[in-house]
Amino acid sequence: MHHADTHANTSARTGRPGPAGRPATGLWLIGARGSVATTATLGLAALAGGHASPTGCVTARPGLATDALPDFEGIVVGGHDVSTCPLPKRAEALADAGMLPPHLVTLTRDALEAADAEVRPGHDPARPEGSGQVTAERLAADIVAFRERHGLERVVVVDVASTEPLPDPIPEHDDAGLLLAALADPDRAPLPPSSLYAYAAILAGAPYAAFTPSASAALPALVRLARERGVPVAGQDGKTGQTWLRTVLAPAMAARNLRVLSWSGTNLLGGGDGATLADPDAVGSKLGSKSRGLRAVTGTDTTPLHIDYVPDLGDVKVAWDHVHVEGFLGSRLTLQTTWSAYDSMLAAPLVLDLARLLALAHAAGLAGPVPELGFFFKDPWGSDVHDAAAQDRMLDDWVRRTAARVDATGAAGQDAR
Amino acid sequence: MHHADTHANTSARTGRPGPAGRPATGLWLIGARGSVATTATLGLAALAGGHASPTGCVTARPGLATDALPDFEGIVVGGHDVSTCPLPKRAEALADAGMLPPHLVTLTRDALEAADAEVRPGHDPARPEGSGQVTAERLAADIVAFRERHGLERVVVVDVASTEPLPDPIPEHDDAGLLLAALADPDRAPLPPSSLYAYAAILAGAPYAAFTPSASAALPALVRLARERGVPVAGQDGKTGQTWLRTVLAPAMAARNLRVLSWSGTNLLGGGDGATLADPDAVGSKLGSKSRGLRAVTGTDTTPLHIDYVPDLGDVKVAWDHVHVEGFLGSRLTLQTTWSAYDSMLAAPLVLDLARLLALAHAAGLAGPVPELGFFFKDPWGSDVHDAAAQDRMLDDWVRRTAARVDATGAAGQDAR
Amino acid sequence: MHHADTHANTSARTGRPGPAGRPATGLWLIGARGSVATTATLGLAALAGGHASPTGCVTARPGLATDALPDFEGIVVGGHDVSTCPLPKRAEALADAGMLPPHLVTLTRDALEAADAEVRPGHDPARPEGSGQVTAERLAADIVAFRERHGLERVVVVDVASTEPLPDPIPEHDDAGLLLAALADPDRAPLPPSSLYAYAAILAGAPYAAFTPSASAALPALVRLARERGVPVAGQDGKTGQTWLRTVLAPAMAARNLRVLSWSGTNLLGGGDGATLADPDAVGSKLGSKSRGLRAVTGTDTTPLHIDYVPDLGDVKVAWDHVHVEGFLGSRLTLQTTWSAYDSMLAAPLVLDLARLLALAHAAGLAGPVPELGFFFKDPWGSDVHDAAAQDRMLDDWVRRTAARVDATGAAGQDAR
Amino acid sequence: MHHADTHANTSARTGRPGPAGRPATGLWLIGARGSVATTATLGLAALAGGHASPTGCVTARPGLATDALPDFEGIVVGGHDVSTCPLPKRAEALADAGMLPPHLVTLTRDALEAADAEVRPGHDPARPEGSGQVTAERLAADIVAFRERHGLERVVVVDVASTEPLPDPIPEHDDAGLLLAALADPDRAPLPPSSLYAYAAILAGAPYAAFTPSASAALPALVRLARERGVPVAGQDGKTGQTWLRTVLAPAMAARNLRVLSWSGTNLLGGGDGATLADPDAVGSKLGSKSRGLRAVTGTDTTPLHIDYVPDLGDVKVAWDHVHVEGFLGSRLTLQTTWSAYDSMLAAPLVLDLARLLALAHAAGLAGPVPELGFFFKDPWGSDVHDAAAQDRMLDDWVRRTAARVDATGAAGQDAR
Ligand SMILES: NC(=O)c1ccc[n+]([C@@H]2O[C@H](COP(=O)([O-])OP(=O)(O)OC[C@H]3O[C@@H](n4cnc5c(N)ncnc54)[C@H](O)[C@@H]3O)[C@@H](O)[C@H]2O)c1
Ligand SMILES: NC(=O)c1ccc[n+]([C@@H]2O[C@H](COP(=O)([O-])OP(=O)(O)OC[C@H]3O[C@@H](n4cnc5c(N)ncnc54)[C@H](O)[C@@H]3O)[C@@H](O)[C@H]2O)c1
Ligand SMILES: NC(=O)c1ccc[n+]([C@@H]2O[C@H](COP(=O)([O-])OP(=O)(O)OC[C@H]3O[C@@H](n4cnc5c(N)ncnc54)[C@H](O)[C@@H]3O)[C@@H](O)[C@H]2O)c1
Ligand SMILES: NC(=O)c1ccc[n+]([C@@H]2O[C@H](COP(=O)([O-])OP(=O)(O)OC[C@H]3O[C@@H](n4cnc5c(N)ncnc54)[C@H](O)[C@@H]3O)[C@@H](O)[C@H]2O)c1
Ligand code: NA
Ligand code: NA
Repeated sequence: MHHADTHANTSARTGRPGPAGRPATGLWLIGARGSVATTATLGLAALAGGHASPTGCVTARPGLATDALPDFEGIVVGGHDVSTCPLPKRAEALADAGMLPPHLVTLTRDALEAADAEVRPGHDPARPEGSGQVTAERLAADIVAFRERHGLERVVVVDVASTEPLPDPIPEHDDAGLLLAALADPDRAPLPPSSLYAYAAILAGAPYAAFTPSASAALPALVRLARERGVPVAGQDGKTGQTWLRTVLAPAMAARNLRVLSWSGTNLLGGGDGATLADPDAVGSKLGSKSRGLRAVTGTDTTPLHIDYVPDLGDVKVAWDHVHVEGFLGSRLTLQTTWSAYDSMLAAPLVLDLARLLALAHAAGLAGPVPELGFFFKDPWGSDVHDAAAQDRMLDDWVRRTAARVDATGAAGQDAR
Repeated sequence: MHHADTHANTSARTGRPGPAGRPATGLWLIGARGSVATTATLGLAALAGGHASPTGCVTARPGLATDALPDFEGIVVGGHDVSTCPLPKRAEALADAGMLPPHLVTLTRDALEAADAEVRPGHDPARPEGSGQVTAERLAADIVAFRERHGLERVVVVDVASTEPLPDPIPEHDDAGLLLAALADPDRAPLPPSSLYAYAAILAGAPYAAFTPSASAALPALVRLARERGVPVAGQDGKTGQTWLRTVLAPAMAARNLRVLSWSGTNLLGGGDGATLADPDAVGSKLGSKSRGLRAVTGTDTTPLHIDYVPDLGDVKVAWDHVHVEGFLGSRLTLQTTWSAYDSMLAAPLVLDLARLLALAHAAGLAGPVPELGFFFKDPWGSDVHDAAAQDRMLDDWVRRTAARVDATGAAGQDAR
Repeated sequence: MHHADTHANTSARTGRPGPAGRPATGLWLIGARGSVATTATLGLAALAGGHASPTGCVTARPGLATDALPDFEGIVVGGHDVSTCPLPKRAEALADAGMLPPHLVTLTRDALEAADAEVRPGHDPARPEGSGQVTAERLAADIVAFRERHGLERVVVVDVASTEPLPDPIPEHDDAGLLLAALADPDRAPLPPSSLYAYAAILAGAPYAAFTPSASAALPALVRLARERGVPVAGQDGKTGQTWLRTVLAPAMAARNLRVLSWSGTNLLGGGDGATLADPDAVGSKLGSKSRGLRAVTGTDTTPLHIDYVPDLGDVKVAWDHVHVEGFLGSRLTLQTTWSAYDSMLAAPLVLDLARLLALAHAAGLAGPVPELGFFFKDPWGSDVHDAAAQDRMLDDWVRRTAARVDATGAAGQDAR
Repeated sequence: MHHADTHANTSARTGRPGPAGRPATGLWLIGARGSVATTATLGLAALAGGHASPTGCVTARPGLATDALPDFEGIVVGGHDVSTCPLPKRAEALADAGMLPPHLVTLTRDALEAADAEVRPGHDPARPEGSGQVTAERLAADIVAFRERHGLERVVVVDVASTEPLPDPIPEHDDAGLLLAALADPDRAPLPPSSLYAYAAILAGAPYAAFTPSASAALPALVRLARERGVPVAGQDGKTGQTWLRTVLAPAMAARNLRVLSWSGTNLLGGGDGATLADPDAVGSKLGSKSRGLRAVTGTDTTPLHIDYVPDLGDVKVAWDHVHVEGFLGSRLTLQTTWSAYDSMLAAPLVLDLARLLALAHAAGLAGPVPELGFFFKDPWGSDVHDAAAQDRMLDDWVRRTAARVDATGAAGQDAR
């Protein structure tokens, strides 16, 4: 795709050389000026600058360290967004709200400005840009230009844009041929924005992860295209807080042969995501992906769940769960959990993990859904495993195995494919 | 030890034939009239009678089923206790307190009476019976007589007696030779009651589990004797509620590379165990075994923990935990859990599991601590693994492997050793 | 209304003499075979029989005791219901579900049967009985016959039937003349069942309380009729658990000059009421009355609230609240509460209180809404006070004042009006 | 004490004129550089400067506003401390810890420096200053000099120093004559520091409040001296969080005639107060004053309570309560509360309230304990009322009544005595 000698120069030009002369990796964020994206971008700069430790990054925990993953310092950020609020300003707002540490905003200002300069206008469905194909090609071109401008080994695309309502199913979603035809038709709009972005990533040959519950690459037609074009994809809907906790606890109950009768929950959140999910259409996709895994693990259908927009909570998410369980001789026990966290602080390190892991997947020549990345998602593509501990083992095995394979065939990204 | 032909007859005589002519297994409970023991005895009868399903029994979950484990119907119960309150009466009291379902007390009355008839006077340290050796031999004789009376394949001893204060360490605890000499001396009492029971089990060749945090077989001298005399042992301190939850959650945090800053907890409980633990000496052993694992897993020493005796709660245990965690970029998150359960309803099925699993260990000829049974204990003997999911995998593997070995060498208990 | 000499005889005949020769009071329950009604009826019998103490009855607390209130032993129960499941059977079901103590069901069986014999068919809107007037007169006749059959001083009607959806507003609800005209028209149905019952109580001259959020006597036209016909009424929607807690806590925050930013809540409940409230129409009336007071006291509109039907919880209601508060210098504090209770056990003693207090109001000649009974209700009629402590003082004053007035003019119910 | 004409000048000199020419009031804090004191001092400056609103100040709520209370702008701060860490530095540390808003630290720096210049060395019991009398006179002289230096109407002393262990009782504590004799003896130390400060306030004729559970003015001999010398005193141990909540909830339960069976609690806190209370001696005084009121209101003795030092929580206090209650027919209900707040943010506004209210008490010529200030304290002096709502009414009445009295006799502090 590009030549090793180019990298050093390009990286040098951007002031972000891949360490030890290794070519840098790109992280292209859909929703690049949102809360999760801003936190990930700032966090990456803080890590690269030695101002923070990678607490919360799964790939930084002792057991998973491997040279086959790109270093944090070697990741360059860009993306798409429909918002024009610059990253440094968004970061300041998040600091004022008590989430981001003010001193880190100061220390990373240059990096935030640099990343903001790499943000290109997103696709706003209210402002059609021509046929879907035209739009996707424009978006893909932005990604390719970013890769070339910085001489990047590869670019991983991660969708952290606002949750969309799920589209009504149409035959085009299941059939790649039909889909390509409809995309070419300027009078049709067979794909919602999230899926156009996913398609653009495929066109750009960029590994892709869906951190949102939106349709994105979850459509069979796009899965097929990803496989055909050698693009590894992972999804869907980041498993960061309450759902993660549920997929930790529910399998543990099952291991004890305890029977979950009902699992009831409530989420309170403010912030941008809270405002989006106050929309009954958008919240539908989220509620779906939050409950599916739980039902699969527990076998109960009594899982009432609510998401409430509570603006005064700002970026904090509070989640309460009430679990009613049957034990020995029909006895009942209850477990209640209250989880309170800055949601984007949980999500951002996982976004960085996905960038590193999909870079590895790409280096290893994988295409289509990577089921072993299910650990990161509420609705894991290509996998029925929801048990967090089991997913963790799968991930651990996969990293070792894949890293060994990539190492055997050459340093990641050099000539892996 | 005994002849296969005797079994069928004897079992027949007691009206509890092992299913399909298989010889029965004995379960000998130290503290046989306590809350856990009563619940286990009643539960076993309810299972055998088809009045209840084995919810809460780990060995009854689909994945662990194997013919190599004795069936519930083939288990006969006896034990030691210093209390003279008959089992049916204790069961009624537990039903009045809302824990045991009244109809099951009625349905299992015969079995409770039969088990109560098998309870022998326990050893009360306030009433010395001669030297420790004399006492232990009397206790061992009770176990052997039980085995012979019922023609049992083997008897598994499980200690569910009141928690004792930990004894002051003396050299005899570490040296089997010194210990045996001191036990022979009527003027010395080198072992607390729980350890005398453990020694008696070893003398009787009976596999042994310590469900309490008392000294029991945790002394190096007794471990050596157990190994030498071919007795598998497992311990210690049943991991049923709050501690189990902690060893589910803490490793999950570690997998996310989140850093636990403090893990604070409180337990409220009434019942017999609550009254015992209101004694500051007794509670010491419990608090120790509750915190050790957590510190090992989380790496933090800030783990304040309290156990309060709240008589009006009866047999319910309420546990509150507050976990303070550092995430990405120094952010903080909190998780609170409130657990409310009938403590003995959690413990009893695990006691039945231990009876089945130690029978298998014995059939397989194992001796000394069985680390793979660590899943059941706060302070696992022979193992440093506290992670519940990891323990669960070890258990699963061990059952398969050991069952296969026993099957290969003959049906469990026939001629396994 | 009736002669004192009749009472002794009549009461004697029913085996429920008012104590000290005092005429008995009737309690007529709409929804007489429901959970709250069954608990109230059984509880009254248990109190009268000396099998229970009046814990949970406000009028039985030391400060409120007065001879001017009818004694528990002097209360006779009857009512309307559309269910045909007899009271003793319903009581057994509630005992099996763990709510009612089994021994009390046995001890009160006769009283439950006696009360069940006094239950008359309720009005089922699916089975019209002619015009509204005809229906109401039939219902009123049932009440009057009950009063005369038992020679009762007076009958207090309390609506504890299933919550209804709120009716669409029509001019008849605001104008007594229009309403009476529409009621006479067999082709119209201007009132929902709850309001027909309230009208029937007015026709029967029976003091009336609405323990439900249904329309009942909350319509201006019915309020006017109650006033004109000398019938005291009180409502609405029993304030028993979460809402009570909120009206305790919110004013306390205000007294500290703390500013509530949001008050978010969730209710989980099974039981009959839970099933009814699983209907989105019915739950609307409930959610309205639960939030109005809170908004009035706190001044915030961010009060998301949910009611979830969780059948496995049976008659237990679990309510979680998360309160986000601004304190000094913009600091934030949170209060979370989890409330877990048998809902009907909270409601039943208050139903008995209302019977006693409305008997007093009637004896004192009051007509129309009694604002001082606001303590008992989520939506207090005739009052804007929601602060539980303030309502408690109002109640206390009112009982003293009214009792003194009744005492001055003759024993309650003799010739009070 | 001083002349009205001096005030204007002096106040003018300090840049803190009492509004409308009214002489200023002094607030003298024992523990002036602690967390509560720093927050109160900064908060007062923020209020006076119009940078904050008085949320959390009881005396600022609409109903309590009266001209008879000194305005926030008219309060000048000084105090004693054994710490030499300057107030601005302490404020910065509290801002770094996330408690104080950084911009307010900046805005109030001058006021913090001015207050710090008014802090005099406290009495360190490890460094005797001569007899108790000598020490107290030195401390009193500091207070008097502060009053005169600023031409203050009066100085209110509030003790917010570290909690001390309770002293062993000696006869001198009960007898003013004996006490004065012992104070004169350089070889005796009849009073702990907190009581020496209280005595100094009395000597200086300065109204005094004990916000800590230390002995302070709670000794009968000091109460008598306060009465004799015309000094109003109020105490003890600020009721800010968990205890306040308990005295809101417990009386509400009583009003419902519900019976509290047990009330169990745990406190987690870091900060300076947490470190102090990690000392088992110091925590004794605190636990005592936290439980007394609860036992009085609920009638139960089962009130286990713990305070744990959890340094990573910083200045946040987390309190969990589990309330087990008996309701109708022996049913059980539970209420759990979790309270999470910056402790000093709750305390500081109440310290300002006490300054204002004790200034009023002094203006009105009151001497000795002011029971109507019980609202502010866990252990109210001169009162057995713990019910927060009842205390609130008492406070409200008292303010109105006392303000009216002061107004009738002249503006507060002009010629009130
Ligand atoms: N823990 C978590 O934070 C978490 C967990 C799982 C999933 N997610 C998902 O991550 C996503 C981002 O969350 P957030 O809190 O950052 O939300 P946010 O509202 O702060 O940011 C979303 C960003 O997407 C942008 N956007 C909207 N439409 C777009 C479009 N058509 N093209 C390009 N950009 C567009 C918005 O302008 C905004 O900048 C959400 O979908 C959320 O559900 C977050
Ligand atoms: N979830 C749980 O219930 C759980 C979990 C872990 C450990 N445990 C441990 O299990 C044990 C039993 O708990 P429980 O609730 O049944 O307590 P319990 O008080 O109801 O029963 C203890 C029994 O031991 C008997 N006993 C006391 N001293 C004895 C002696 N010297 N010899 C023989 N018997 C003696 C007592 O008479 C009593 O019958 C306790 O040590 C407890 O700590 C229980
Ligand atoms: N704490 C509490 O339990 C509480 C608090 C406030 C209000 N309430 C209200 O009290 C009411 C009763 O609650 P419950 O738990 O007893 O419910 P439930 O479902 O157990 O009982 C309701 C009864 O009403 C009867 N009914 C239904 N329609 C009727 C009609 N048209 N005429 C006569 N009877 C009719 C039903 O047959 C049933 O027997 C509900 O409206 C509930 O919202 C209860
Ligand atoms: N919500 C609350 O914060 C709350 C509620 C009730 C009571 N209190 C009490 O208020 C007091 C202060 O709490 P804090 O959080 O500010 O504690 P802190 O430790 O931050 O401050 C205490 C201050 O007292 C000073 N001090 C210690 N000994 C002294 C002495 N002999 N003379 C003068 N000063 C001395 C210390 O140097 C320190 O500056 C504590 O006693 C606490 O129990 C606080
Ligand atoms: Na009202
Ligand atoms: Na007092």
